[in-house]
Amino acid sequence: MSYFRPEIEAMAGYVPGEQPRTDDCIKLNTNENPYACSPAVVEAIRRAASDRLRRYPNPMAEPFRQRAAEVLGVEPDWILCGNGSDDILTIVTRALVGQGQLVRLPYPSYILYKTLAGLQGARSEEVYFEPDWSLHDVFASGRNDLRVVFLANPNSPSGTMIAPERVLEMAERLPCPLLVDEAYVDFAETDCMDLVARCERIMVSRTLSKSYALAGLRFGYVVAQPHLIEQLVKVKDSYNCDALSIAGATAAIGEQAWLAENRAKIVATRARLAQAMRKLGFKVVDSQANFVWATHGERPVSPIFERLKQARIFVRYMNYAGWGDGLRVSVGADEQIDRFLEELERIV
Amino acid sequence: MSYFRPEIEAMAGYVPGEQPRTDDCIKLNTNENPYACSPAVVEAIRRAASDRLRRYPNPMAEPFRQRAAEVLGVEPDWILCGNGSDDILTIVTRALVGQGQLVRLPYPSYILYKTLAGLQGARSEEVYFEPDWSLHDVFASGRNDLRVVFLANPNSPSGTMIAPERVLEMAERLPCPLLVDEAYVDFAETDCMDLVARCERIMVSRTLSKSYALAGLRFGYVVAQPHLIEQLVKVKDSYNCDALSIAGATAAIGEQAWLAENRAKIVATRARLAQAMRKLGFKVVDSQANFVWATHGERPVSPIFERLKQARIFVRYMNYAGWGDGLRVSVGADEQIDRFLEELERIV
Repeated sequence: MSYFRPEIEAMAGYVPGEQPRTDDCIKLNTNENPYACSPAVVEAIRRAASDRLRRYPNPMAEPFRQRAAEVLGVEPDWILCGNGSDDILTIVTRALVGQGQLVRLPYPSYILYKTLAGLQGARSEEVYFEPDWSLHDVFASGRNDLRVVFLANPNSPSGTMIAPERVLEMAERLPCPLLVDEAYVDFAETDCMDLVARCERIMVSRTLSKSYALAGLRFGYVVAQPHLIEQLVKVKDSYNCDALSIAGATAAIGEQAWLAENRAKIVATRARLAQAMRKLGFKVVDSQANFVWATHGERPVSPIFERLKQARIFVRYMNYAGWGDGLRVSVGADEQIDRFLEELERIV
Repeated sequence: MSYFRPEIEAMAGYVPGEQPRTDDCIKLNTNENPYACSPAVVEAIRRAASDRLRRYPNPMAEPFRQRAAEVLGVEPDWILCGNGSDDILTIVTRALVGQGQLVRLPYPSYILYKTLAGLQGARSEEVYFEPDWSLHDVFASGRNDLRVVFLANPNSPSGTMIAPERVLEMAERLPCPLLVDEAYVDFAETDCMDLVARCERIMVSRTLSKSYALAGLRFGYVVAQPHLIEQLVKVKDSYNCDALSIAGATAAIGEQAWLAENRAKIVATRARLAQAMRKLGFKVVDSQANFVWATHGERPVSPIFERLKQARIFVRYMNYAGWGDGLRVSVGADEQIDRFLEELERIV
């Protein structure tokens, strides 16, 4: 007999994107930012690396909350910080969803939502995206046992977005909170942050992993109305953000000019990448994120993925059961994308 | 109607020890190490604070696992790392305990165990320590719905230990895993690490917060047999340790000479502190941790706590319902303890 919960035993566990050990490769598989983070972040971390580390960090990451509140135009008590936005998603799920209850998510999307439901012993209902990557009204339908709805916006792997007015419309019809996961939103044209004040059911999560080039730092946050934050706090580990990541994140969120510049570079490369892949016969969805989603009408993409890998170019091959497969290619630096396109042309 | 699980709504939430903002105080309330961490740790963190932060960290904190395995004399796959040992306790609870099931813990001890059970919608059974801080056989008794037993060893607030042979005896009778929380073990005379190989039900968790002077870093780990680690991994966030804390922790665990020296200082100060408090009329339990637990036969300790606080000396006042109250005083640096004793003498 096992010591573990049957839900755990039955799980395969989430497999993160491959992290090749050597530096002699082009890594376009986990949507990391290709550019170095702001020097202000490195400096802040180095300052925080001192004998102060013997002290516990601020339990609410207060310095970040203060600075982020100014940047986002909300009050600090609307913000809860986490050890990456995965920590935020975990906290939200544990706070809202009990055993046997229901979580709704779009499909295909970030696989973690389903894993988190499974960890709670909850069921999940996957609503397929329409062919144009919109969502049917059924995504907003009420059910008694529905406890939370997740929406990655922009979505992964598609890079597409549901417009804010549509998100609001759906949230207003839902009986439960809607977590809008804006991990990639800094690369998009619009966002749902303003909706949080208009509808208490909308919570918006963000991360510093992608647009601030700080995946290694593990820092994310959620913005929600204060009476929701108050409950979420109870679920988090007491000191869920460490002193170094708080220092780095606080510096990062203040670097809005750096962000704008970084974003502009990536958005420009994204357009070039999509266009070039289309020329090579791929169907590439218009992306609002730092990656593109590509399928091919005539040939299987899995061998293309393998050939790229042999050439030390890592992209993400995604195969969604009952839906289909494709390549998710992170927007790298210009020279990386040049190398990728060169190799791709050779292959196809 | 609330969006949240009733268990969450009903919870008060864990309140971490007070973290006064200014530096003009003597802080003996959260068992932080009074000395600076090893310079090797600061150096390793500063090196890791670079453009590499744009990359995700190693999902299993592999560099730490390798180094810790050498130090502990186990294989790396016996180790799972966490964002502080609170993360480890959370992972263990979520992996083992389902709604309505039972968690057992000693009383009084670390309050988090009960909170974690509550977050799972589980029940908890508190077994009171005997007057001599031993545990009755009932602590090892079997019950069908019992899923995990927690044992802080050394215990907080008492600083006392259950001997390894007694721990093994109890684990062998239990129907479920026994998590031995060795947060304070580096200040003790003995430990339970060797028992992990002898009994698959024993898991030993540790933290770098106390003995390595790295509470701000958030790094802990658990040692268990590999087939248990395999299941625990499924519950953790994919990247639960950040790149900076992995770098710092890997350097720290290699600093065994630093650890021995730091430990010797604290153990010496602890003896002096206990003796001096006894002279002032306190009952002080023999401690194997970096704090002492003091009660007073003749007078209430709560006003003493308040008077100390007015003098900007922070200790921890603990009041355990149905059990009693006392002062938990962290072992500070010698000059801090001198100031504390001076003030205490004035008060009593």
